Amino acid sequence: MLKVPDHQVAGHKAGDGRLGPLVDDSGRFYKPLQGDERGANEVSFYTSFSSNTKIPDHITRFFPKFDGTQLVEASDGSGMQPHLVLQDLTFDRVNLSIMDIKIGSRTWPPHAPEDYLQKCLKKDRATSSLPLGFRVSGARIFGSSKVGYREPKNKSSIQTLSADEVKLLLKNFVSSNASEETQMKPDCAFASPVYGGSTGILSQLLELKAWFEDQTIYHFYSCSVLMMFEKELASCGKSPRAEIKLVDFAHVHEGKGVIDHNFLGGLCSFIKFISEILTTPDDCSADSLVDDAQRNHIYSDNGSV
Amino acid sequence: MLKVPDHQVAGHKAGDGRLGPLVDDSGRFYKPLQGDERGANEVSFYTSFSSNTKIPDHITRFFPKFDGTQLVEASDGSGMQPHLVLQDLTFDRVNLSIMDIKIGSRTWPPHAPEDYLQKCLKKDRATSSLPLGFRVSGARIFGSSKVGYREPKNKSSIQTLSADEVKLLLKNFVSSNASEETQMKPDCAFASPVYGGSTGILSQLLELKAWFEDQTIYHFYSCSVLMMFEKELASCGKSPRAEIKLVDFAHVHEGKGVIDHNFLGGLCSFIKFISEILTTPDDCSADSLVDDAQRNHIYSDNGSV
Repeated sequence: MLKVPDHQVAGHKAGDGRLGPLVDDSGRFYKPLQGDERGANEVSFYTSFSSNTKIPDHITRFFPKFDGTQLVEASDGSGMQPHLVLQDLTFDRVNLSIMDIKIGSRTWPPHAPEDYLQKCLKKDRATSSLPLGFRVSGARIFGSSKVGYREPKNKSSIQTLSADEVKLLLKNFVSSNASEETQMKPDCAFASPVYGGSTGILSQLLELKAWFEDQTIYHFYSCSVLMMFEKELASCGKSPRAEIKLVDFAHVHEGKGVIDHNFLGGLCSFIKFISEILTTPDDCSADSLVDDAQRNHIYSDNGSV
Repeated sequence: MLKVPDHQVAGHKAGDGRLGPLVDDSGRFYKPLQGDERGANEVSFYTSFSSNTKIPDHITRFFPKFDGTQLVEASDGSGMQPHLVLQDLTFDRVNLSIMDIKIGSRTWPPHAPEDYLQKCLKKDRATSSLPLGFRVSGARIFGSSKVGYREPKNKSSIQTLSADEVKLLLKNFVSSNASEETQMKPDCAFASPVYGGSTGILSQLLELKAWFEDQTIYHFYSCSVLMMFEKELASCGKSPRAEIKLVDFAHVHEGKGVIDHNFLGGLCSFIKFISEILTTPDDCSADSLVDDAQRNHIYSDNGSV
C-alpha cells in the first residue's frame, strides 16, 4: 500500500485529490512524472546519472537511488500513472528535522524560452535566490515529543528570508530551544554534532563543492539540497545521522565542458552560512532576545504542528 | 606629460578627441571619473578598500594602488576634469601579452532598476557571460618582435566566444606559435611558466578564490580580471612576470554579510579553463589543425597589428 510521505517540506503534496509523491513501506518514493518535458527530463537525468561511471561513489551517495519508472495508482484518483521509483530518503528516520534549500541565484538555463526566463527571473528576484544565491523552500524542525514539529508560517515567507533570517533559521534548526514559544536566542546545542565534524553537514557540503569545482557533465537548475538529522539521537549523545541529499532534477542540462558556476556559487554561499555558525559560537546564546520581526517572518504564530 | 596607454584592451579609449584614460611616465594611470553615479561609486570603492584593514596584504596586491582623485586635462579636450589616480599596471612592462576577463554570469546587482537590469541581461545572454560565467572583454597577444601583437577581430566577437573558442584563445595566449599565420595547433610552450607553478596565474587565481569564499564585504559586478605576462622573458628561461589584477569597480556594492556568489562562480569557471590547460598538455601540439571557423571567430584576418 502506498501512502502520503510524512516528511515532505517542499513541492506539490499529495492528498485531498491532489497529485503528489507517495511512499511504500519498504523505502521507495514514487514521484509522479510531470506531464510536460520536465518529467521526461528528470527520467533522462536519472537514467544518465545512474549509469555514468565517471561519477565517484562518494558523490553518488548524495543522490537518491533510482529504480526506473513504474505505473502506480496516482494520488489524485486519476488512475494508473507513470512515476519515478526513487529511494525514500526519510525512510527509517524518527522525528526528523529537515530543510529544503534550492541552490543557485538563477533557476533558469542560458537558452530558456523568453516567457519561462522572465517567470523564473521574477521569482528569483522576489525571493532570497538573487541576493543569497539560494532560497529555503521548506523546513520542518522537530522540537520535542511534547511540542512536536515547528514549521515556517507559509511557503512564500520562507523563500524570502534575508541573510539575518536565514542565519537565525539555520541556528534554530540545530538548537534545543527552537520549538519553544520564547524569544530566547537559539542555543545551537547541536551545531557541533550536526554541522561540524568529519561526517557532519559542512564536511559533506565541502565534498559536494569539490566535485562541482571540477565536473562539467551536468548543470543543475532549480535543484535542491535536502539537509536532515535526528535531534533525539543528538540529545542522547549519539550520532544525529546528519545528511545532505540532492533532489529535483527536472531542470538539469548538459554541462558542455563548463562547470556549473551558478550552482557552485550558490552552494558556496550556503556553505559560508553553515561555517559561520560553527566558527562564531558566541552568536548562539540564551542571554539575549531575538528580533521579533525576524522570528515572526520565519515561523507561524502557533509554532508547533 | 600625459599620454594614451599602450596596453589598454577593453573599455573606452582616449584619442581622436575621445575621453579615455591617460598615463604619465612615473607609473600612474589617470582614469576619467564617469559623470554619473558610476564615477562616484568607483571613488567610494577605492576609498573604502584602500583604508580597510580587514583586507589581507596577499589580496590587496591584486588591486591597483589608489592615490586619490586629481583634476587633469581630459583627453577629449574638454579641459580640466576629475580623474582617479591609480597605479599603471602595465608600467615598465615590455612586449606585454594581456587579457581582460569580465567575471560573473550576471553583470547587474540584485536591486538594479528594471531598464538597467534588462539591458545588462540582454548583453549577458548575447555573450559568453551566461553560459561560461565570464566573458573575454579584450586581448592583445605578443607574437614576436617581427610580427608584433595579435588582437581579436573586434570587440563583440571576442565577447561571444564558445567554451571551445575560449580554450583555444587561452592556449594561444601562452603559445610560441600563436601569432603566425598558420593553422597549427597552439604549442602551449609557455603554459607551464605562465599558468603553472607556485607564482603562476593559476596559483594567484586560487588565492583570490579562497578570499572570495570568505569575504562578505563587497560584491563585484561587471569587474574584470586582467591577466598579463611577458613572453620574451619566458622565451629566454626567465620568469615571465605572470600576474593577475582586478580592475573596474564602478559597480561594486556592499556584500551585507553574504559572499559574492556571482563573482565566485564565474571565477571558478575561469579557473577550470586554466587548470585544464595545465592538466591536459596533450591537447597542445603542433601535429594537427585547428578548426578554421574557431580561429576566424577569434582573430582578425591580418593577424598582427
